[in-house]
Amino acid sequence: MSDLKVVQGNIAKPKGFKATGLYSGIKKVEKLDLGIILSEVPAVAAGVYTTNLFQAAPLKVTKQCLDKEAKLQAIVANSGNANACTGDRGWDDACTMQSAVGEAFSIPAHLVGVASTGVIGEYLPMDRIQEGISKLPAVMKEDSGPLFSQAILTTDLVEKTICVELTIDDQVVTIAGSAKGSGMIHPNMATMLAFITTDASIEPSFLQQALRKATDESFNMITVDGDTSTNDMVLVLANGYAGNKQLTEDHPQAGLFYDALSLVMKELAKKIARDGEGATKLIEVEVRGAETVDTARKVAKTVIGSSLVKTAVYGADANWGRIICAVGYSETPIDPERVDVWLGDIQVVKASFPVPFDEPTAKAYLEQENVKILIDLHGGAEQAIAWGCDLTYDYVKINASYRT
Amino acid sequence: MSDLKVVQGNIAKPKGFKATGLYSGIKKVEKLDLGIILSEVPAVAAGVYTTNLFQAAPLKVTKQCLDKEAKLQAIVANSGNANACTGDRGWDDACTMQSAVGEAFSIPAHLVGVASTGVIGEYLPMDRIQEGISKLPAVMKEDSGPLFSQAILTTDLVEKTICVELTIDDQVVTIAGSAKGSGMIHPNMATMLAFITTDASIEPSFLQQALRKATDESFNMITVDGDTSTNDMVLVLANGYAGNKQLTEDHPQAGLFYDALSLVMKELAKKIARDGEGATKLIEVEVRGAETVDTARKVAKTVIGSSLVKTAVYGADANWGRIICAVGYSETPIDPERVDVWLGDIQVVKASFPVPFDEPTAKAYLEQENVKILIDLHGGAEQAIAWGCDLTYDYVKINASYRT
Repeated sequence: MSDLKVVQGNIAKPKGFKATGLYSGIKKVEKLDLGIILSEVPAVAAGVYTTNLFQAAPLKVTKQCLDKEAKLQAIVANSGNANACTGDRGWDDACTMQSAVGEAFSIPAHLVGVASTGVIGEYLPMDRIQEGISKLPAVMKEDSGPLFSQAILTTDLVEKTICVELTIDDQVVTIAGSAKGSGMIHPNMATMLAFITTDASIEPSFLQQALRKATDESFNMITVDGDTSTNDMVLVLANGYAGNKQLTEDHPQAGLFYDALSLVMKELAKKIARDGEGATKLIEVEVRGAETVDTARKVAKTVIGSSLVKTAVYGADANWGRIICAVGYSETPIDPERVDVWLGDIQVVKASFPVPFDEPTAKAYLEQENVKILIDLHGGAEQAIAWGCDLTYDYVKINASYRT
Repeated sequence: MSDLKVVQGNIAKPKGFKATGLYSGIKKVEKLDLGIILSEVPAVAAGVYTTNLFQAAPLKVTKQCLDKEAKLQAIVANSGNANACTGDRGWDDACTMQSAVGEAFSIPAHLVGVASTGVIGEYLPMDRIQEGISKLPAVMKEDSGPLFSQAILTTDLVEKTICVELTIDDQVVTIAGSAKGSGMIHPNMATMLAFITTDASIEPSFLQQALRKATDESFNMITVDGDTSTNDMVLVLANGYAGNKQLTEDHPQAGLFYDALSLVMKELAKKIARDGEGATKLIEVEVRGAETVDTARKVAKTVIGSSLVKTAVYGADANWGRIICAVGYSETPIDPERVDVWLGDIQVVKASFPVPFDEPTAKAYLEQENVKILIDLHGGAEQAIAWGCDLTYDYVKINASYRT
């Protein structure tokens, strides 16, 4: 990983990209709610989408564009309104956003991806959005990239960006990511919005394949509350400005690019989990010794998804019985006699049997902001890591009155 | 249902049954923690058990007894300690509870069922339990039945009992039930402890079959937090004292008995859901128009299990988008264009499309203690009902420090 480093930078850092955002009046409070990512030239693009049966209009429109030629030159995104369950009018509104962006930036409308997040079942205020889009070119500056990351937030408390640099064919390649997501976070893609830009030159099919694989190890391994939204999507744009030889599966540095993409996506995923609605802690569950990767993932996700584990971590209560319980209902073929559990470095269960431990030490460990639960199934060589957050009073507070 | 009526009464109401409870010192606070149900004669018995891979010792011991001859004469139950993840010593302790009860009441030890609920991974304080068991005969009175229902509670706020009478072969048959469960409540049997007594004369295989079917429509349709415990079990004892002709599948009133058993179990299930940890409301989700019962159940359980739906109901927020969202990730083959949703009598979604409704009216409806969500999939003739509760600050409070 020495060829790979995390650097300062935002979604507009890769060569040939710009981004910006503004307040258009979708949100009731004056917070940025409309943003755009723009590439100087059409970029190779790949996407993964929610598994929810009710797919929102912007997602369907974007998917249709990508299915056609796997290229995008811009992504317009709004927060505050998801344009979901809005029928034909929702579809038309998403298409209008495309054409408005096409007009404002003089690019073909079918190269504009659309993403929306927010309340479900209300029509977009198209007059404000169209006015907002018309103002986007004027606020597009060299340094306006961070505004995009702000414009896509809803109940998020912090912006989620990451930027890495690597060298491919002696050229510096940059990959940057920006994500939003706080509630309605759950495994199986359907997790949030994430946008990734890179100036790498890359074959479309390899980009799609790398995106799908990295999604399984990143966004599909986080959960906040088990809910899966109608709008979730990850899009990657690669405009080739870095000047490397086109990356394919057979390129000698294909593995390095994958590692970098995977790092960007895992860091964004962890930022989303840490910023889970009401969360005070990031919880990491690592499962080792599984017979299959599928078993490792299922066990890790089940433990990270348990409301009882989440509240115990919130209360810094070393109630490992709840961890064992969750392992037990994960619907995996594990041996219930051989499970070890650690909280950080403190072993609390050995061969499914309690290990005496010092309660104050365990409590002190669980009071930290980053809590790691390690589970060894002693049933094989596979492993997986999942991320989540604690369940707190504030989760309830935020969600009991989201619309008001 | 005219032949069937809910009457006052507890687990000791059916003829030939007694029950009691006392404080033995398992719980840190002086609340009843040890109870017994006793039949004058060995009763036909049937059970269903948790699907959790980590099955607690008392459950395994009880299951072994029932597998042997499908008869029990007594059930001893304790709260405050689950005797789970306690290995060989846990098994021995459960067996010791059996033999102590056998000695105290002069009945064969292998006719004693054992049930435990509470903290996982700690050994039972066997000295106190044995002393408590030796005191049970002295506190066994004609009217001590309600003490059993108290003795099995943990974080429950209220006792959960129900009693019905019906007439079979001109004989009055009584069925009574007592349950505990508040957290760690989730579909697929694995839900809680429930005990049912009846003086009906019944064939063992018919009893087991009726129990399993009624479990699918009652306890398997409730959820509080999605967690499934290591100790959950439903046991039915039928001692034949009512004097009816033995009930079999072919008995002309077999259906009536099933309806009565099912009523008892649904009422207990609803009481558990309503008493969910921190709950202020009982939520009922009815799914109609499903192609299969399995689809109807899955959709109902997914909606009732959504943290976002639960918090919205807590906040009396008519955020139907979260209901649609949960339907969408239920992993069922439904048509996402045809879904109707009602909150009580207020239709909010028609053919997957928002229906304008009066917000204050909807809010007033959701502020009631019993909230009904009706979903019509328009895809068939099957239906299912699931029960759950809202997710509140108090759920977090209770579970952040359960052990302390």
